[in-house]
Amino acid sequence: MVTVAVDANGADRGPAEVARGAALVEGVRVILFGPRAEMDASAHIEVVDAPVSIAKDPDPARAVRRTPDASIVQAVQAVADGRADALVSGGSTGAALAASLFTFKRARGVHRPTLAVVVPVPKAPFLLLDAGANVEVRPEHLVQFAHMGAAFMEAVMGVERPRVALLSNGEEPGKGPEVVVAAHAELRDHPGDLNFVGNVEGFAIGTGAADVIVADGFAGNVTLKVMEGASAALLGAVRDAAMSSTRAKLGGLLLKPALRGLRDELDPEEAGGAVLLGLRKLGVVPHGSFGARGFARAIEVAARGVEHDVTGRTYERLAAAGALRKVSEAAASLPDQ
Amino acid sequence: MVTVAVDANGADRGPAEVARGAALVEGVRVILFGPRAEMDASAHIEVVDAPVSIAKDPDPARAVRRTPDASIVQAVQAVADGRADALVSGGSTGAALAASLFTFKRARGVHRPTLAVVVPVPKAPFLLLDAGANVEVRPEHLVQFAHMGAAFMEAVMGVERPRVALLSNGEEPGKGPEVVVAAHAELRDHPGDLNFVGNVEGFAIGTGAADVIVADGFAGNVTLKVMEGASAALLGAVRDAAMSSTRAKLGGLLLKPALRGLRDELDPEEAGGAVLLGLRKLGVVPHGSFGARGFARAIEVAARGVEHDVTGRTYERLAAAGALRKVSEAAASLPDQ
Repeated sequence: MVTVAVDANGADRGPAEVARGAALVEGVRVILFGPRAEMDASAHIEVVDAPVSIAKDPDPARAVRRTPDASIVQAVQAVADGRADALVSGGSTGAALAASLFTFKRARGVHRPTLAVVVPVPKAPFLLLDAGANVEVRPEHLVQFAHMGAAFMEAVMGVERPRVALLSNGEEPGKGPEVVVAAHAELRDHPGDLNFVGNVEGFAIGTGAADVIVADGFAGNVTLKVMEGASAALLGAVRDAAMSSTRAKLGGLLLKPALRGLRDELDPEEAGGAVLLGLRKLGVVPHGSFGARGFARAIEVAARGVEHDVTGRTYERLAAAGALRKVSEAAASLPDQ
Repeated sequence: MVTVAVDANGADRGPAEVARGAALVEGVRVILFGPRAEMDASAHIEVVDAPVSIAKDPDPARAVRRTPDASIVQAVQAVADGRADALVSGGSTGAALAASLFTFKRARGVHRPTLAVVVPVPKAPFLLLDAGANVEVRPEHLVQFAHMGAAFMEAVMGVERPRVALLSNGEEPGKGPEVVVAAHAELRDHPGDLNFVGNVEGFAIGTGAADVIVADGFAGNVTLKVMEGASAALLGAVRDAAMSSTRAKLGGLLLKPALRGLRDELDPEEAGGAVLLGLRKLGVVPHGSFGARGFARAIEVAARGVEHDVTGRTYERLAAAGALRKVSEAAASLPDQ
């Protein structure tokens, strides 16, 4: 049975909510790191008393190095030691990323870890990466993100031959910043096992044109947040319209049950949160605002990633495409990190 | 009275629709360039027979140089000669930009022209620039875009002391790619007359947090298209929900009149299209799909920009902030274009 180490500190509704999420999961062992008094152990849940939290520290990298007893550091250590197989962290993405990089190291042949998010669009969910871990990238980073994303969608989401696209400002291969143009040429000329479908524009959000959309962490982060902002503005406006007259109010009431299905489809908890790819072990970072169900989904996604060997599949894909980081480059570590 | 030169070729519904738009405008002289047979002249509309169109040419810059009788080239020439004061083009943005750059040259002290779009968000419209003209930028370009955007919002949209923000992946001054961090520091330390409010994230779309949002042309283009894609997906899903049962259908019917107001608020024709800033003369590029009203609005926006001297105000703002392009840089023209 797979074991997932869970940092229970940092969630908006407290460690108890995370523990309730762990209790919802079947078929997975969980080790919870947090204040013992707030969490219940059970047959498949072990509780480790780790009350120290660095979830709100403004400098996560420094906090990780200076706080060995922090819950996130202990959870990551459990994974590194082999006591657990994957990580889930309810704290900040920055702290999870810093602690993981510091302790797990990068996966073999990988330049840079990346943050990936399954974006809940009606009928056309897709994986977007990088979601903000790497605001400046080189072409070989984008190439690797493409393979990592494909491995995740295949292994964890069960998508066969996932269609992978590069985000750009036009569909033509020559469109975009130099780094995107170079990555496009490389993915086209040396796809390996990748089902590369070329560039997509921002319009592709919601059309189902690709299963994986690859971008640098700046454009990716902007894309995610613009989607959220635009959706909130639009739904707010629809809500306002539905309050603007007696007739509209009645219409809104009648429509409500049908819209509930849409709300479920757009629910970010369903995907379990952001996924850290490209490290020796998998990490999942649910949003701090998630409830028990979101944490349960995060634990399930992490376990599924282990069972279906996302890390191994990523290595194979990178090898097949000739996209592994060279050993000589690995030696010159400074320019790469 | 202000005179606007209009390239009537390239619009999806043909030159006649553009001419109908021109006829709707009051208080502005218009010179229409297109096939004479399809357009009517009137007291304030002059028609110049210019049937040759390069609106669909895949290499606009080359087409502009090789096709001196193209309608866009003639329209731009009319502005350059002083027969008209501003340009409106129903053809491709690429052709309008290439022809303008080739003939008008950049405005005094400006590094690069930029494409700006008034984004129609419910209750919180804002100007986004660059929308795709400059996919790679230096900090001084972003700084100039900020001043250009402020001048436009003030002069044409009547916004007093427009709040100007940089798009980034976090609100902290240190967040984002190096070019954004450097532009942030420069705008903060030398704002001149600029009301700089710092960084905004993608969430800011729709919240009314800023009147002008500045980004490189890649992130700006992605933002615009993601907004469009996300909005279309969401409205489509609401429509589907409203067709999913008899009860929902009735609700949708009752809600429809109230949603019509929202549709008007989101109507992209209202803003008249994208605006070319940073050239000696103003240009407006309505979307090819626009109808007569959209072209009328484009002509009005161009005329308003002349009447309220966007170009002059931009120069003053750049001068006040010490952000004018230096003459020595102007001499070294190659690395800058």
